[in-house]
Formats: sequence, structure tokens, C-alpha cells
Amino acid sequence: MGQRHLLTLLSDFGLSDTYVGVMKGVIARVNPAITVVDLTHQIPPQNVALARFALMTAYPYFPTGTVHVAVVDPDVGGDRRAIALAIGQTATDPAGFLVGPDNGLFSGILADHPLIRAVELTNSAYWRTAEPSPTFHGRDIFAPVGAHLATGAPIEALGTGIDPATLVMLNLPPCRQESAGFPSLGADRPTAPHHSRFTGSIQAIDHFGNLITNIPGRQVSDRPWLLAVKDVVLSGQRTYSESAVGALLALIGSHGWIEIAVNCGNAQARLKLELGDRVVVETETTHVETT
Amino acid sequence: MGQRHLLTLLSDFGLSDTYVGVMKGVIARVNPAITVVDLTHQIPPQNVALARFALMTAYPYFPTGTVHVAVVDPDVGGDRRAIALAIGQTATDPAGFLVGPDNGLFSGILADHPLIRAVELTNSAYWRTAEPSPTFHGRDIFAPVGAHLATGAPIEALGTGIDPATLVMLNLPPCRQESAGFPSLGADRPTAPHHSRFTGSIQAIDHFGNLITNIPGRQVSDRPWLLAVKDVVLSGQRTYSESAVGALLALIGSHGWIEIAVNCGNAQARLKLELGDRVVVETETTHVETT
Amino acid sequence: MGQRHLLTLLSDFGLSDTYVGVMKGVIARVNPAITVVDLTHQIPPQNVALARFALMTAYPYFPTGTVHVAVVDPDVGGDRRAIALAIGQTATDPAGFLVGPDNGLFSGILADHPLIRAVELTNSAYWRTAEPSPTFHGRDIFAPVGAHLATGAPIEALGTGIDPATLVMLNLPPCRQESAGFPSLGADRPTAPHHSRFTGSIQAIDHFGNLITNIPGRQVSDRPWLLAVKDVVLSGQRTYSESAVGALLALIGSHGWIEIAVNCGNAQARLKLELGDRVVVETETTHVETT
Repeated sequence: MGQRHLLTLLSDFGLSDTYVGVMKGVIARVNPAITVVDLTHQIPPQNVALARFALMTAYPYFPTGTVHVAVVDPDVGGDRRAIALAIGQTATDPAGFLVGPDNGLFSGILADHPLIRAVELTNSAYWRTAEPSPTFHGRDIFAPVGAHLATGAPIEALGTGIDPATLVMLNLPPCRQESAGFPSLGADRPTAPHHSRFTGSIQAIDHFGNLITNIPGRQVSDRPWLLAVKDVVLSGQRTYSESAVGALLALIGSHGWIEIAVNCGNAQARLKLELGDRVVVETETTHVETT
Repeated sequence: MGQRHLLTLLSDFGLSDTYVGVMKGVIARVNPAITVVDLTHQIPPQNVALARFALMTAYPYFPTGTVHVAVVDPDVGGDRRAIALAIGQTATDPAGFLVGPDNGLFSGILADHPLIRAVELTNSAYWRTAEPSPTFHGRDIFAPVGAHLATGAPIEALGTGIDPATLVMLNLPPCRQESAGFPSLGADRPTAPHHSRFTGSIQAIDHFGNLITNIPGRQVSDRPWLLAVKDVVLSGQRTYSESAVGALLALIGSHGWIEIAVNCGNAQARLKLELGDRVVVETETTHVETT
Repeated sequence: MGQRHLLTLLSDFGLSDTYVGVMKGVIARVNPAITVVDLTHQIPPQNVALARFALMTAYPYFPTGTVHVAVVDPDVGGDRRAIALAIGQTATDPAGFLVGPDNGLFSGILADHPLIRAVELTNSAYWRTAEPSPTFHGRDIFAPVGAHLATGAPIEALGTGIDPATLVMLNLPPCRQESAGFPSLGADRPTAPHHSRFTGSIQAIDHFGNLITNIPGRQVSDRPWLLAVKDVVLSGQRTYSESAVGALLALIGSHGWIEIAVNCGNAQARLKLELGDRVVVETETTHVETT
């Protein structure tokens, strides 16, 4: 049972309506002692891919046992499954619970963390009502189920087990390491005798206009590196303030991915990239991990 | 006294200033154990009608004893009254408390729930200061009064009783059931021998662009129905995903009103309606409730 | 140690990403019993001056012992210091703690409240990790340090003492009282034999479009006064609703500064002023306090 009293909410509901507030009312009816944290409610409507990124990058910072309820649910009322997942404990990652539609929202977390158990939410005793609205499962199924989990209900009680292989996954084109023999990005620099090139793409754009790639920062850490996007080549650096105000720069962002930023400015306003646009990173070494 | 420790806030203050945060500071000074839930702070400035809709549709989902503080208050500092209301318990609805200006904000809740007691907030012992700012009663009167109610103060202590008949009501043009003998909306369908027509209007537009009418879904439940707005006629359906992506559709929304939506899209961007625009719903039956 | 369990957050992170949610996860890992209040996360990116105003005007309304964590941090990862400040108790103001970068964010609070102690955050035992991200000290240093303070950690334990004279201050051009002998603003009024004139500027523009000056309301309280901005002269009044709907007006705002507003409208949309624009206030008296 334990003390699972923290619950996060993520949705595409925005903050201008009362949908989020209503979910909190439903949670308080189950257990007023639960602390609710908003991850964000400003996922663009129906954008499961950005929700996946938001969940994946926020998940590791929460306490053991936190319940994450996510509702970006374009197929609500259709035949997609409603699910709850238990995520395992490792040395570096906390155990947690995930509740939401089975549409790939949790793919990013599942790529990095072991799945312990998956259930389909078939037991309506844990819902707000046995006749849920066909358009708002966040209120009638996911919020109350999450609240019961956060109160200590065993995940097995919520419904029937699911074969993990049947979960819907949303896997983006991965970052690829290319073979040797290519020309260096840094034409005006001595080409390193051994270097590595990674091709990835923009997987998120944040509030500051920072362009976040899917190339992990660990590929370049502690080594000089270059990044190419469109017709721009940037030298990797450590922090914003190493560049002049207004300068484009590349660095390892706080979530661990290589990103493109402008010191005190907006890289997206400068470069006008889109999600999925191609980015190349090159580093001067032979020692690289595989992604 | 009891355990009234949940308090919601609704306002038109937005989230870019610290007005909302300051109200929470004032509440914590009265009682740091109160849990505060934001219903929304993005009511368009001074729009009492939309605030009425937001409160009415959120109210039923909160626990018994919740205190709702609402501050959309264009006449602050003038001679409108500051009030607190106690709302009754019925089989299906929780008891709750309402605190705010007497300008019709609570009309929607009062239309559906019995009023137990109404007081004017004349007892400055429950205010933050006996000399409130003439422009921010949310901080100086409503938030602290709400916090005292949520801590168990009896409503009678907050001020002098009010005759309920004197409360300001904001009643929208109701949904009307029309008399028989009209032509059916569905010209290409066999006209039902007995059918009913309801004329209502758009009473809210949400973050997704869903157009929410004031025609209750219970008028059509379990029967085939049609909706007409502008030059469009739609068949009522159960959920978004019954339609193709991008299709206009009509359904009973999660708050119980008939609404117009686009599957994975924005109905308001498509139809460009305004609050108050006319909508007609027709259903094939003679058995209807009156609104 | 005591009961310091309230913590506020202010940032320029916006609410569309999960940066704020992640800080709350980090806080809950330190102590899940802390109540977190958002002051605002919609400070325009890197705008330290508006963050200073927001903190200064919100600070007095929180309980004794509240910890305020503020992250508007354009020089993150550079050589600006990370600091914590203890603010003193006086008859009218609560004691509190401030945590954030040493860039002037707290200047406004420090202008009104006595500083008890200042430390540089050098003790990484209170951080989330001894190797913080160079771009997100909010997550890795400020949030966990704030959580430890809110749990009762002594400020001295957080790092080495700082000479208060070395703190970065961000002091705006003050409101000035002018010498006598000037012509009255009210040309069509009898010039008072003794009057005073104050020259200040716009220091903030809020969500409603209210233009907030840096001229303290106490300079004019209880006396007739006039305000001039651009080519408009307004008579000071007490509240919005003394004017017709749509009328420009001047009054003492809820934070105590003289402001320009429109009854049920947006003064900024009408006047198109900018931060720093000049405003003159004249009052008919010889008795004035100095700012």
C-alpha cells in the first residue's frame, strides 16, 4: 500500500476551461489528501508525440510511487484501451505509475524504464461512474483511477492484465550514428583522424524557442563537437552565457538532449524549424556509446 | 464545523500577474492547511456570463463542503454587494459554499441547487483588513472570507442575512421547446409522426473550439436526433471518434449539454459562431422533459 | 526549525513545458509536505525588472516564514552567484526567505524590508546533484535549496556568507518630487496656493491593461489629485466604477501604486505606453512624505 500520495496531471485541455479543475475535484472526492502537480495542460490539442516527450523528460524527477495521469486522447470513446502501468525501480530511476489512454503517450518512459505490470481499466468500481461520458474519460475514468492508485489501491484491482507486447508504442525515428568516411562539418578545422557523426531530428520546441533534438548529450560529453542544421554550423558549448547575447548556440540541454538556443533570445524565431527537421552532430572521437 | 478544507478559485485575473498567487498567500495566512484548486483564471475580463457557465458546470464534481471563491467583478468598489451563499445537499449534488460579488456569477448553480442561506459580507473581522482596497476585494474580502468558511466558520457570522429574492440573477434566454406542426430538419429522411424541436443558443466555446449549446442532452438521450446551426444539419452521435477526422459532428458533451465539435479539430474555427447564436435540435419522439 | 512549509515559485518558464512541474517533483522529493504556490511563470523571458516588480508586490501577503524561489536567470551557468536571503520581521511585514540568482530579482523586496542574512549557495549537499545542469539551476539548485529551507534547514548551512553591499541591485529611476513654482496641471481649475508635483514612470502593465506607475499612492491619499500622461490629464478617483464604462481613469491600485485604468476596458490598448514612460502627478497640498 504505502504512501503514494503524489499525482501529476498532463493534458491538452488548456487552462481557460474548467476541465482540469474538475479532474481535481474528482480526485479530492476520492482522497482529499492527495497532492496534485500539473505537469502541463498546454500540449497542443491531440498532439500525442509532444505529450510523450513531456512525460518522458519529466518522469525521472518525481518521487518513488508518484502516479502520472495523462490525458491527450483523440480516440476517447472509441475502441482504444484505457490503461494503467506500473514502472520498475532501478538504481537511478524511481518507480511510478502511469494512467491514461493506450495510444503511445507513455512510449518514451517505457523506452527507458522497465515495465512491471500493465492492466486495462475494466473495473468500473474505480471510476467516477459506471457510465462514463464518452468524451471525457479524464474526469470519469483516469482521474479517479489515478486517485485510487495514489491512495494505495493495487494495480491488479483496476482491471485485466495486458500483454506488454500489445501496448501501442509511438517510436520516433531514432538518432542514427553514421559510418566513417564522411567529410567533417568543420571544413576550416583540422579533420580529426577519428570522428563520429549522428543524425537526428528536432523532437520538441520549448517556451523559450529552444530547439530540442533527439540526439543524446552523452554522445558528445567532454569532447569538442559541432552541430549542423539548415545552413548553420555551431560549435557545441556548455551554457548560454558563453555566447554573446543574441548569438545562436548549441549545447546539451537540461533534459540531456542536444539543443539549439539563442542567448537571451528565441532560436525558433531565428531558424523557423519544424518538429522532425534534420540535425547533424559530429564529435571528434572514436569512443561512442550506441543509442 | 466539520472538515471543509477544499477551496476553489475562479477569476478573470489571468496567470501573468501575481493577483492569484497573492490570494493564495492571504488564504495560507488564515489557514495553511487549506487545499486550493484553480478552476480557471482565464475568464475573459469582466465576462460574468462565461464565469457563470464555468462555475455551473464545475460545481457538481467537488466534494461536499467545498468553498468556491469567484472573482469576476466589474463593479468592485461600487455598491454591488459582497456575498456568501450556502448551497443545499440533495441526493445527487453535494453541499457547497459560494463567495464573491452579487452580480449573477452564481445564477447557474442556483438554477439547479437549493439555496440554504445568503449573507452579505459585512463583518470585517473576517476580512484581511477593515479598510479593503477599493479595487481588489478578491484579496481583501473574498479570499479571506472563503478561507474562514473552509476552516469551519459559520456562514451566519460573516454578515447580515439577505432575502434570496434580492440576489442578482443572470438568466440566459432559455432553451425553448417549440409546438408541433413544423417541418422536419431532416428533409431527406422520413418525417417521424411525432417529433419535438428545441431552440437554444451557444452558451460557451471551449479551448478545443467545441461549441456548447444550452440545450440539455437529456432531451435527446437514446433517441435519434438532428442539429441545425447556420446552414449545416448534423446527425447526433455518441462520441468524437464515430466521425472521420476533420468532420463536423453533434453530440452530448461531458457537461451534459448538446455541443458541436470537429473530430481532432476546432468547430469554432470552422463555423465562426458567437455566444448567443441560435441552434435548433430536433428529436423523433413525443416523450420529452421540460427544461 | 519551526513550520516553514509554504514555498512560492516565480519564473519565466511559461506553462507549456514541464519545467515548472519538474521543479515541483524535485521539491516533493525533498519534502512532500511542502505546499507550493505559483506566483507566476509568465514573466517575459529574461525580464528581471518585471520579476522584481512581481516579487515586491506579492511578498507582503504571504505568511511568516514563506520561502520564495525565483528563477529569471539569463546568466545561468555563468559567473553570477546563486543566493539565499533571510528577510527580517517588522511590525507590518512577515519574515521570509528568498532563493534565486544574484541579479537584482530581489531588489524591490530589499528596498522595503531589512536583510538579516545573505549566503551564496555553495554547499552542494542541498542541491539535487553535485553536478547541476549548466542551464537549469531552478531544478538542480534553487528548488531543492528552497525545499530544504521550507523544511527548516538553517540558512547558514546552505553556503558561505555574503557581504550585503555586494548584492546586485536593480533600482529603477525613482519617483521624484519636484520643487515648487511650476504651473498646475489643471489649467481650468483654480491653482492651489500650495501644491506638489511628482514625476515617475510606468513600472508594470498587468493582464487587464492597467498601467502601474512607480508613484506611491500615499503621496496623494485623501487629497484631490491630477495625473498627466502623454496629452491626457485625469482626476484621481477612488475606484473603477466611479467612471463611465470605457472611461480612462487614474486611481491608487491594489498594490499601493498610482495606476491608470479603463473601467471595464484596457488602458494599455488605449494609450499604447511602454515601461518607463513618464507620468506626472500633482496634488494640492504642502504636506507630503518623501519617497
